Amino acid sequence: MADIDSWAAAIQSGDRAALARAITRVESRREEDLQTGQQLIEACLKIKSNSYRIGITGVPGAGKSTFIEQLGMRYIAAGHRVAVLAVDPSSSITKGSILGDKTRMQELSRADAAFIRPSPAGDSLGGVARKTRETITLCEAAGYDIILVETVGVGQSETAVHGMVDFFLLLKISGAGDELQGIKRGVVELADALVINKADGENMAAARTAQTTFKKALHLYPPKPNGWDPKVLLCSSLEGSGFDEIEALLSRYAVENRTSGSWNKKRTEQNIAWMQNTLDSGMQRIFQESSVIREEYQRLQEQVAQGNLSPFRAAEMLLKKITFEAK
Amino acid sequence: MADIDSWAAAIQSGDRAALARAITRVESRREEDLQTGQQLIEACLKIKSNSYRIGITGVPGAGKSTFIEQLGMRYIAAGHRVAVLAVDPSSSITKGSILGDKTRMQELSRADAAFIRPSPAGDSLGGVARKTRETITLCEAAGYDIILVETVGVGQSETAVHGMVDFFLLLKISGAGDELQGIKRGVVELADALVINKADGENMAAARTAQTTFKKALHLYPPKPNGWDPKVLLCSSLEGSGFDEIEALLSRYAVENRTSGSWNKKRTEQNIAWMQNTLDSGMQRIFQESSVIREEYQRLQEQVAQGNLSPFRAAEMLLKKITFEAK
Repeated sequence: MADIDSWAAAIQSGDRAALARAITRVESRREEDLQTGQQLIEACLKIKSNSYRIGITGVPGAGKSTFIEQLGMRYIAAGHRVAVLAVDPSSSITKGSILGDKTRMQELSRADAAFIRPSPAGDSLGGVARKTRETITLCEAAGYDIILVETVGVGQSETAVHGMVDFFLLLKISGAGDELQGIKRGVVELADALVINKADGENMAAARTAQTTFKKALHLYPPKPNGWDPKVLLCSSLEGSGFDEIEALLSRYAVENRTSGSWNKKRTEQNIAWMQNTLDSGMQRIFQESSVIREEYQRLQEQVAQGNLSPFRAAEMLLKKITFEAK
Repeated sequence: MADIDSWAAAIQSGDRAALARAITRVESRREEDLQTGQQLIEACLKIKSNSYRIGITGVPGAGKSTFIEQLGMRYIAAGHRVAVLAVDPSSSITKGSILGDKTRMQELSRADAAFIRPSPAGDSLGGVARKTRETITLCEAAGYDIILVETVGVGQSETAVHGMVDFFLLLKISGAGDELQGIKRGVVELADALVINKADGENMAAARTAQTTFKKALHLYPPKPNGWDPKVLLCSSLEGSGFDEIEALLSRYAVENRTSGSWNKKRTEQNIAWMQNTLDSGMQRIFQESSVIREEYQRLQEQVAQGNLSPFRAAEMLLKKITFEAK
């Protein structure tokens, strides 16, 4: 544990190599590494942090990298330290489609106050998301107080990122006709702000139209649990325009929610939800790995699928087949 | 079992009392009754049915009862048999806020080809939903081929109803300003059709405006998994106008989805989801009822809530504390 404590102290002191090595432990597939990673996380949870976790999603081509570069450099100019992480479950197949190439964030990748880490690889979204969630804890202990978590606007990854950030931002470009090109159902509802990027030059008129359309659409949704009314903003990452408003909005959100207590309430709820989900999937895994039960499970599922057995009855029959004891 | 078979035969022959008694068994809290109920359901699942399950939601005041009365009587006139069920988890507290009063469906409640059953009572949405889902099976065996399932537009009950029907209809009235009065986040996304009721007299202009607004809003969503593009229609349950279009839409949806195979696919997926959810909640219940684990669970949850323990680590610690064996 002395090792762990001095490692954590190194992380806290701003030793980038110590942080990077810790993340590697958390991302590892080796049981021994993972245990070290867990010990490091426990030590890092004790280190006080006052961070702002911001999730950023958008389809490929929405300009996430340049947006993050702009936003990140502004935060650094204001004296913050910025970590850029990602959740991309496809990266193990596509070999890192997002953040893999640091050259897309040239300034940020050279800045001392920035730490960029590509998405961990993984077979499942759950695994990838967990690693990123744990890396947030390590980065916060290292003094990064602005945590930008990037994800692509496909699949369930936005929901996972939404569950680990304070503010969720959907980046869009104004398009012809179908305004939600490729964005999955439900993602717009998760957004605390919708930012229309590339609002410059010839795109300006289309961007303004999109802004009006989305303002109307968002107005149709009831307010968020914390009372926040999602906003629609314009920006151009290329020209650097619109970022004053974005920063002001992010700041106002933080002040309002910290004052009202919603900030901590949301973080607590997020933590409890991660615990419950991990518990649920762990129980399912144990359940499905039991060779005796697995066959019965498949047999009953088949009958349910064919409509010959009530799904409730099938579940009860399986539950009766297990003993479940505390050690 | 001879009893069960003759009981099921009585249900199939159209004996209303036999059907009502079977539903009472399914809704009972007594273990013995529930077992009889399960046996009846298994027998009824063997009886062939070609039903159309239609979910109808809307806030109180949207006019669900008169809408169901109109739609139901039209189906009866076309030779169908109509069952009207409900999911209202609040009914055990409010003593049946919906469907409790059959006088609101005067014609339907007198029609031989209609069967109206108020929401079962229950402590949890899961329990109430399950009973209604099982009652659908009994009604289908009794030859009801149009199943209308009503629910109020609050809480999670719409999601439960959405998970047991072929078509999900959101009933609205055109309102001043906030078009989604009281409708919970996400419900609009579940809808296969949005029907604006009370589109008559002085309301007509406002209803048309609301129709345009919603058409635009729905267009922002990507298509449903089955490729269906949700529609926005107008009607007046009072004047009986708009129902030709609603019936035509419901009919077209059924034809398209039955032809493409989406119909059966969706039903199978719904059944598997009910099975998995029942299994999950059953495992959670066993888990939380174990006195040794429960205390540990609460202790760890507290630490997670305070941010002193990783939610993943907490879940793992709990999972290690149980043995989970097949009998």
